[in-house]
Amino acid sequence: MKPWEKNIRKVVPYVPGEQPNKKDMVKLNTNENPYPPAPGVEKVLKDMDSDTLRLYPDPTIKLLVDELAHFYHLNSDQVFVGVGSDDVLAVAFLTFFNSPSPVLFPDITYSFYPVWCDLYRIPYEVQALDENFCIVKEDYNKPNGGIVIANPNAPTALYADLSVIEDIIAHNKDVIVILDEAYIDFGGASALPLIEKYDNLLVVQTFSKSRSMAGMRIGYAMGNPELIKAMNDVKYSINSYTMNRTAILAGAEAVRDVTYFNDNIQRIIKTRTWTEEALTDLGFSFPKSSANFLFATHNKIPAKVIFQALRERDIYVRYFNAPRIDNYLRITIGTEEDMRKLVEFLKGFIENYK
Amino acid sequence: MKPWEKNIRKVVPYVPGEQPNKKDMVKLNTNENPYPPAPGVEKVLKDMDSDTLRLYPDPTIKLLVDELAHFYHLNSDQVFVGVGSDDVLAVAFLTFFNSPSPVLFPDITYSFYPVWCDLYRIPYEVQALDENFCIVKEDYNKPNGGIVIANPNAPTALYADLSVIEDIIAHNKDVIVILDEAYIDFGGASALPLIEKYDNLLVVQTFSKSRSMAGMRIGYAMGNPELIKAMNDVKYSINSYTMNRTAILAGAEAVRDVTYFNDNIQRIIKTRTWTEEALTDLGFSFPKSSANFLFATHNKIPAKVIFQALRERDIYVRYFNAPRIDNYLRITIGTEEDMRKLVEFLKGFIENYK
Repeated sequence: MKPWEKNIRKVVPYVPGEQPNKKDMVKLNTNENPYPPAPGVEKVLKDMDSDTLRLYPDPTIKLLVDELAHFYHLNSDQVFVGVGSDDVLAVAFLTFFNSPSPVLFPDITYSFYPVWCDLYRIPYEVQALDENFCIVKEDYNKPNGGIVIANPNAPTALYADLSVIEDIIAHNKDVIVILDEAYIDFGGASALPLIEKYDNLLVVQTFSKSRSMAGMRIGYAMGNPELIKAMNDVKYSINSYTMNRTAILAGAEAVRDVTYFNDNIQRIIKTRTWTEEALTDLGFSFPKSSANFLFATHNKIPAKVIFQALRERDIYVRYFNAPRIDNYLRITIGTEEDMRKLVEFLKGFIENYK
Repeated sequence: MKPWEKNIRKVVPYVPGEQPNKKDMVKLNTNENPYPPAPGVEKVLKDMDSDTLRLYPDPTIKLLVDELAHFYHLNSDQVFVGVGSDDVLAVAFLTFFNSPSPVLFPDITYSFYPVWCDLYRIPYEVQALDENFCIVKEDYNKPNGGIVIANPNAPTALYADLSVIEDIIAHNKDVIVILDEAYIDFGGASALPLIEKYDNLLVVQTFSKSRSMAGMRIGYAMGNPELIKAMNDVKYSINSYTMNRTAILAGAEAVRDVTYFNDNIQRIIKTRTWTEEALTDLGFSFPKSSANFLFATHNKIPAKVIFQALRERDIYVRYFNAPRIDNYLRITIGTEEDMRKLVEFLKGFIENYK
């Protein structure tokens, strides 16, 4: 070992999900939106004065923050914007989780939570979901250094009723509770109104799913101004200028087009319903989805076998080789055509499976 | 104090430099390039298929990494890309500076170094520059947890000869030495060739200055593959997808246009020479600049007075109210017209100053 190696931060290298890029593939593996962003986004990029790129962007990201505040009926000092919700969550972990007591989150949830804890040396303790993948709210009534919950959860797609969420927040007023609502627009009610009642609640959302902009990297957090200021203080201490000019302009434009946003979501929900029925007919079952994906298991064929078979046909879904969920596939809701291709292939495959 | 406040990370809120946005202002305060990015950048944005924004970008940023590797005659595994050199440096600090011994850097240098140390709880110890703002290389021959040096330095614009830099690296083979070369393209020789000789050297550069793309947020680091892998491991543990699709495409296009890059730099160097002569005639002096700015002090009028007078005329330069440098102005080299306006105003102001 070279002497300088001993001071390198040890992390378990997180392996990002596969991003295949084949012609005619059906890409249902990373919960992207199958439809393009709002039409105004293309126009904004085409009309952009590229000369302005020589100048630093606005460090306060005012244009986009104001547009989000307007959309959600908040004040601008209640909104924080970052480079995707991963950036927002990472900043929130670094800002709020500095207790010697462990941070709590479910055993089955977004796989980044333990990664951020390990990176920033935050102690944590996972709480088991019940046998139906539901949160056991009583498990969060114990001393802790903070709580993070994804609702709807990933990769289960299950939405926990707001009463369950509020019960957890109400029992944990001494710590920050982060609610990761990446998928909230596809079903369920947001906990956003609760930020007026609980000053320790931070609600995090993203442009990557319901706004079709995973490629632009925009996420945001909403909470009381004191929380938002604390996050901005940390952000300004890492990198004052995180959002580039294209992301700020395109993001603001996307928020303005409310009709497109709602239509896009309804279209995906409709395709989700169709897919649920078709897959049920083929012997699949899944927790009720409130997201843009299904978490499906088959009554005969192991998930891993189906995953491999799909992959060979350039149909990409996500498989997690992890305890309790290793017989499930996470299948993003794509276009109607994507889902027809998936169902047709699975029909043939299941019929011929011995 | 609310109970949850005690776990919020305490940082001295870094205040980003002012970003005025007035018509007809002369903006010489944040070392931006006065000329637009390479013409191909505009074309890339106009031609971009906005439908692709629904998909996550390539987490490995291969297109841009490969283009930089090609430009610098490196292998791709020797290049790390991030959201501006601030992001790259912050990741480097978090990755490499994990020793109980203090990190060393000059007392007068880029103001973000102590901010990152405070944020990540890295001990540090500043080493005084000599009375001419030069590095005293012997000060770095002592036990430490790593070294970071800006060359050319900011805000002095002074370039330290490569022999000085190499001497420091050679005396510190047990720790990582980070060389922040944000301004290297405007003068002086890069330490890049030394990465083949010293596996503990990381060279950091940016698109914000010589490539006219501060608004796009692109920075990069070059070093041995083990260092680059360690940084990518940490990056993937924070946010796998940091660079959005527009930044990757536009960045790669900018690197390809070598002629534009060189012409842009030569134009700024020419204007710098003109400005140096004009300001000298007015009673200013400055360390020899190898950057796209001057660090100027006047033989009669206090810097703060000049700063305020310029500001009232919508000519923005940077003033640091800090020990040893509080009688200096950092003046970015703008267009020839910008500098003529500056000089004309100063001429009148100085003539009438009592």
